[in-house]
Amino acid sequence: MPELRRDPIVGRWVIISTERARRPSDFASTPRVASQPNAPCVFCPGQESRTPGEVWALRPAGGLPNGSGWLVRVVPNKFPALRIEGDLERSGEGLYDRMSGVGAHEVVIESPDHEARIEELSVAHLAEVLRAYRERVVDLARDPRLEYVMVFKNQGDAAGATLEHSHSQLIATPIVPMMVAEELSGALQHFRIKQRCIWCDIVRQERQVGVRVIREEGGLIAVAPFAPRAPFETWILPVAHRSSYEETPGDDLQSLAALLGEILRRMSRALSDPPYNLILHSAPLRARALEHFHWHLEIIPKLTRVAGFEWGSGFFINPTPPEEAARHLRGDDAWRPVS
Amino acid sequence: MPELRRDPIVGRWVIISTERARRPSDFASTPRVASQPNAPCVFCPGQESRTPGEVWALRPAGGLPNGSGWLVRVVPNKFPALRIEGDLERSGEGLYDRMSGVGAHEVVIESPDHEARIEELSVAHLAEVLRAYRERVVDLARDPRLEYVMVFKNQGDAAGATLEHSHSQLIATPIVPMMVAEELSGALQHFRIKQRCIWCDIVRQERQVGVRVIREEGGLIAVAPFAPRAPFETWILPVAHRSSYEETPGDDLQSLAALLGEILRRMSRALSDPPYNLILHSAPLRARALEHFHWHLEIIPKLTRVAGFEWGSGFFINPTPPEEAARHLRGDDAWRPVS
Repeated sequence: MPELRRDPIVGRWVIISTERARRPSDFASTPRVASQPNAPCVFCPGQESRTPGEVWALRPAGGLPNGSGWLVRVVPNKFPALRIEGDLERSGEGLYDRMSGVGAHEVVIESPDHEARIEELSVAHLAEVLRAYRERVVDLARDPRLEYVMVFKNQGDAAGATLEHSHSQLIATPIVPMMVAEELSGALQHFRIKQRCIWCDIVRQERQVGVRVIREEGGLIAVAPFAPRAPFETWILPVAHRSSYEETPGDDLQSLAALLGEILRRMSRALSDPPYNLILHSAPLRARALEHFHWHLEIIPKLTRVAGFEWGSGFFINPTPPEEAARHLRGDDAWRPVS
Repeated sequence: MPELRRDPIVGRWVIISTERARRPSDFASTPRVASQPNAPCVFCPGQESRTPGEVWALRPAGGLPNGSGWLVRVVPNKFPALRIEGDLERSGEGLYDRMSGVGAHEVVIESPDHEARIEELSVAHLAEVLRAYRERVVDLARDPRLEYVMVFKNQGDAAGATLEHSHSQLIATPIVPMMVAEELSGALQHFRIKQRCIWCDIVRQERQVGVRVIREEGGLIAVAPFAPRAPFETWILPVAHRSSYEETPGDDLQSLAALLGEILRRMSRALSDPPYNLILHSAPLRARALEHFHWHLEIIPKLTRVAGFEWGSGFFINPTPPEEAARHLRGDDAWRPVS
């Protein structure tokens, strides 16, 4: 059974995933579950029985669960970081705190096509992927042990992808993750002083200034954040205030699919198919309709190394000003390095 | 001129290092300054003129600055993340805050031997490397614009090392880094309630329980932390309360060198020369003799990938319980995976 443990100094929780326990010799070279050329991919049509039973799927022409004919398919992760079985037990040990590793870990297989990348899908197809995220969050929210569902995607080896067939993941946790808690707390502080959502303020300022806006479309905006951790980091968020992604109506998912696909294609062209992480930050499951939180997608290309300085300090060193990145992704001007 | 920028939501500062600005095409493959087989290494003896002029060096048999004959040599980084020139100017822009990128970035060349790894140095030699850290921190502390000096080492490509010749780095910043601020704040909260240093409490509990202690020697202790971010993460700290590394007397640096070398050799054997980051956390420059802060070294082997989930949540997934890692590094028992 995996276990959550809390660092007593900074309050950071880690998941000790003992089912994935490895012997030192296994670390000698970083293990990868890369595509095995001789074995068919487990995410491909016809291989459905090799994954755990599906929890959601879209079969436009009908068909049985765990059969073929699907466009998007969601299955439990075969090597889950957290497990759905068991009670949520909390215990202490002197200074230390632990919690049983209850949660869920699912994989969203985005397309039956082994080669397709998410930005190559049609808008309608990508909107179904985004709908799968929404449906799974809504379903997992019914489990009272869970407080948060983190939706994310690792594209490319350097971003941590272990299987080639394009997929996203969801990890549901019994506590609100630290990063989200920090956003909630910073945003609440802003709201208490100004009575305004900080992301609404950011959108307002960015639209006035213009230099970091990449594109606006269908009520959504893509911006390069003022203080990006990585070159070409991009945020996508609704222009109007919305705290929970899972309340996004279907039409808005179409708009989101259109904008997300366009941004990913531009990144792909500008940076030659960069590895990236895509992260969805939405309000916690038990906190609907917050005035101070605004859901957003973060796309973080993995072009630079995070090393000892970043790990030790929390600073990030970014060689590309967001104004340059935005100008380049907007495509309205040639790239010019800052002199 | 590099610039510090603050994220208005979570308060994280990033360094926009425009002097390192790169065009999108430069990111196509991650650039490395790997050892060029045909060019002599810039950190090797005889190549001293190819680095910026040294700021500290140890020449046991004497000799001129920037000549050969050194055992340890500290030089400014040729591509600094922050610059020593200029005033520290702070400015605002609507929601956003920036600061001129004033600071220092230095490289500690640990040995004249191109092939030597830090754990292969003699105890006396490694103690001189640790003394170089101390001397540079003490010197940089004289600059009133600086608030912190982060000492760190990237060993191996996967840990972010860009030059093969073994070296550490120092980056001095005009603000206390977020990670250190979080440790200070968590530790202060503990101190206010209990009137005890939390690291002193950790050392006490670990010595009583024993399962996570790796080794104790010369007034220092090496432990696997209760909630490690990475497999085989190890902390080294003085058993007695000390807040600032730079006040460590010479004899204690000898003990630290002995323990650090031993731990790194054991890791190297157990994990086949793993890439790792070494980080020194000491009290801020302007805050000497804190009752609630305790300096420590963190060694973080880079054996697993940090991907979208970690970036988005702040959780870490660690497959190796620290009790197993400690038992293995202690060497008093065979490794057994958790069943």
